[in-house]
Amino acid sequence: MTRRIRIFDTTLRDGSQREGIAFSVEDKREVITALDSLGVDFVEAGMPQSNPKDAELFGSLPETKCDVVAFGSTCRPGMSPEEDRWVLDLAEHSGDWVCVFGKAWRMQAENVLHVNEEENLRMICDTTEFLRSRGKHVIFDAEHFFDGYREDRGFAMSAVRAAADAGAEWVCLCDTNGGSLPKDVHDAVADVCGCVSAGIGIHTHNDSDLAVACALAAVEAGAGMVQGTINGIGERCGNANLCSVIPDLMLKMGLETNADLSRLTTVSMTVAEIANTRQDPSMPYVGRRAFTHKGGMHIDALLKDTRAYEHIAPETVGNRRVMVVSELSGKAGVSRKMDELGIPHTDEDVRKVLATVKEMESRGYQFEAADASLELLMRRVCQNLEPPFEIPAFRVYMDETSDGIKSEASIKVRDRNGSTEHTAADGDGPVDALSNALKKALSKFFPVMERMRLIDYKVRVLDEKAATAAPVRVIIRSTDGESQWSTVGVSTNVIEASLTALTDSVEYGIYINRE
Amino acid sequence: MTRRIRIFDTTLRDGSQREGIAFSVEDKREVITALDSLGVDFVEAGMPQSNPKDAELFGSLPETKCDVVAFGSTCRPGMSPEEDRWVLDLAEHSGDWVCVFGKAWRMQAENVLHVNEEENLRMICDTTEFLRSRGKHVIFDAEHFFDGYREDRGFAMSAVRAAADAGAEWVCLCDTNGGSLPKDVHDAVADVCGCVSAGIGIHTHNDSDLAVACALAAVEAGAGMVQGTINGIGERCGNANLCSVIPDLMLKMGLETNADLSRLTTVSMTVAEIANTRQDPSMPYVGRRAFTHKGGMHIDALLKDTRAYEHIAPETVGNRRVMVVSELSGKAGVSRKMDELGIPHTDEDVRKVLATVKEMESRGYQFEAADASLELLMRRVCQNLEPPFEIPAFRVYMDETSDGIKSEASIKVRDRNGSTEHTAADGDGPVDALSNALKKALSKFFPVMERMRLIDYKVRVLDEKAATAAPVRVIIRSTDGESQWSTVGVSTNVIEASLTALTDSVEYGIYINRE
Repeated sequence: MTRRIRIFDTTLRDGSQREGIAFSVEDKREVITALDSLGVDFVEAGMPQSNPKDAELFGSLPETKCDVVAFGSTCRPGMSPEEDRWVLDLAEHSGDWVCVFGKAWRMQAENVLHVNEEENLRMICDTTEFLRSRGKHVIFDAEHFFDGYREDRGFAMSAVRAAADAGAEWVCLCDTNGGSLPKDVHDAVADVCGCVSAGIGIHTHNDSDLAVACALAAVEAGAGMVQGTINGIGERCGNANLCSVIPDLMLKMGLETNADLSRLTTVSMTVAEIANTRQDPSMPYVGRRAFTHKGGMHIDALLKDTRAYEHIAPETVGNRRVMVVSELSGKAGVSRKMDELGIPHTDEDVRKVLATVKEMESRGYQFEAADASLELLMRRVCQNLEPPFEIPAFRVYMDETSDGIKSEASIKVRDRNGSTEHTAADGDGPVDALSNALKKALSKFFPVMERMRLIDYKVRVLDEKAATAAPVRVIIRSTDGESQWSTVGVSTNVIEASLTALTDSVEYGIYINRE
Repeated sequence: MTRRIRIFDTTLRDGSQREGIAFSVEDKREVITALDSLGVDFVEAGMPQSNPKDAELFGSLPETKCDVVAFGSTCRPGMSPEEDRWVLDLAEHSGDWVCVFGKAWRMQAENVLHVNEEENLRMICDTTEFLRSRGKHVIFDAEHFFDGYREDRGFAMSAVRAAADAGAEWVCLCDTNGGSLPKDVHDAVADVCGCVSAGIGIHTHNDSDLAVACALAAVEAGAGMVQGTINGIGERCGNANLCSVIPDLMLKMGLETNADLSRLTTVSMTVAEIANTRQDPSMPYVGRRAFTHKGGMHIDALLKDTRAYEHIAPETVGNRRVMVVSELSGKAGVSRKMDELGIPHTDEDVRKVLATVKEMESRGYQFEAADASLELLMRRVCQNLEPPFEIPAFRVYMDETSDGIKSEASIKVRDRNGSTEHTAADGDGPVDALSNALKKALSKFFPVMERMRLIDYKVRVLDEKAATAAPVRVIIRSTDGESQWSTVGVSTNVIEASLTALTDSVEYGIYINRE
């Protein structure tokens, strides 16, 4: 029978230790729902005893198939669990599962907590027994286990054995500092598996760029649970990335989990969005670039056999193949893209598109993330697509007033029949004012404007060394309620770059909604 | 005797396949110099035969201790090396070392190149012998070695044996698709080491999040050379990150290389800057967050013993410890930071600073990358630091003209004595105009303005979903020719956010240059 590995997600607890990340209660609910749809077994959602946000969350958890786990520590030195408010709160939270951490490294116990081995074991044992007596299932996180094991195997082993003997169902071995090699993890886990009756989990950090490898090595040695986070977020260099661990376990090692791999890319993007971080496009399996091919030679080979440069089929993990149109991708890539879009073209068209793309790329344009701008460019070259409107003039003002800085834009727009609309609008900043004014002016000509809205706005400074005189690239994502599309603009003037992307965005929306 | 592992850097060749990266000839020279200062053994700099940029580079290579390697492929099917222009160009380039790739996977040979095994071996053998006869040292890159080995061990082994027998000094086994597990890499490398007389190298990709682990596993099995890139850049999910591989080999596995570890962080930042990519702050060893501590409990423990949450001393790799002042870091962190800065403070001061930081963080401020803004805030609270100037009014205009969009800013500045300067300036975009006008106005009062300049300007949209009405965070880095410092501003108006950061930046420059 194939082994089934349990997946324990700690995005909301250890992941939120990443600098710059803070989840609201509503964010946490959305993440729990996303993780549940992926099919993880446990979601560690926070510390109900330590802050009001988590207390509110645990007060009304969403309905889930997975178990939502509350995190806390063993009772404090010299206290019984009944005396320790933190442990009591943990015992009273609404879920069935708790995860408590304790010390497995003599140095930590003695130098940080100032307790001896006996007191350390008492804290672990009493806390576990107390939580069991209150009907909780207990997972014991052995903090710094591998550092402790290296320095004093007896101390580390006693700590995990104490938790297991007191009734913890899982003992999770933590490489808290992320400094261990896979081989060392493998050998220590095998040793623990031979001595401890509880299920063994593994919790690794990426400080040596080996978090995923260490998690896999532990599973190979007998661990039955992996702790990690979506997108590998976490303090310092992050935790083991479950978006890599899960497919590695299932597709490479032939093991089972309860996860639905086809949801992986979506969940990665959802969590990145909720955490308001950029999804790293180079992330294995789920990143935008994971199956992106750029070199002309590679694209030629892929068209012959996808195995040539892909280790798995992108759809397996819900991702997709991208053939990038770039300086390097050559005519085959451009021609294939136009076939996909149903744009009839000659060799001369391909040559012209490629020359235009190349020239614009040299000015800082990139079409990888701007599908609509690329399609418009191709249709302009091959089908003489004409713009549905022109902007003969606009002006942006900013003035400091007693209410703060006021931004206003005036704009003139002319449609193909020569009708002109001249209007103005305020906004939150100059780009917003311009966007509002453009929308207002075009609504007269194009009813679809009512349904169209911006859903994403990104600014990238292209040559940071040139400081405020550097060109910037603006990427805008828009929707008409059904489709979504992205456009790009480049200029040393952030307003001008935004207007270029805005204009393309509106033109594309009008184009796909034409009668 | 400790084994000494050779480091082969391919940032400029395989690394440049990363979407969005293009090195100029001058960029490549700078990267070679940086890599040489780090102490890598080989730098693969490009393909002199395939494009004029690389031809120019190889025509005048910088002086280096390391060997600069030219990359190419075996001769084409049905051609002798003497007939193949690409191989001839490779033979004629100025350096002593060449790296040629050939097929080690039957599927690739048959389906992509359309050659049988015999012809494939002839191409490898003839090309290697020819290049040797022209006095070159040859490294043979066995493309797709591990996929080939899995499917047809005989085919893969014959390919690498052919190269070794024909005189290749190194045979490098490539996990081109990045799909292999460390265990499989280990076993295959051990097998090759037993059958082939040349030195064995390893070249891995990160598609399974295991590139570093696979490189280490190969070294453990006998490989004597590791190929990788700085910051792990490369197509799809990137190559093995040498910034992780080198310290893992030296600090974790106890092996030797010729690298100077203390240069690692600097070289990582330099290459990121030249490639115009953002250095991933979570990168192991060299990232800005690698030794950054945020949780209050962790900071308390670190103050007792740095081993508590650090797997190595940050200085070993030229990095440094950062204690982040954030919502979570508590009073100990703030107090410690003020001690470092020599700001005398009471408990009440600490409480006030923490409250202000917390309130500003809730609006999107972050002080991790804005040391000068944080210091000003602390001095304002604890020492009643007064601003050296005020900006009672400013105005920014943008007009579309026949020459494009024109940006102009007017500004009024008042110093502490009540003297006012009212002036105006043009710029490349509104922020540049404002920056120029501010500098011009302040020069009258503060001579240090002449030496001060912006060296970095970053914009981050904080809530991308709010589109053009989203708040943005601007980070500015400035210098007076001696020190460098960073400041931050947040607003829904990018101009206002920039002005806040600009004002702090100038105020800090004036403060540290006061008489």
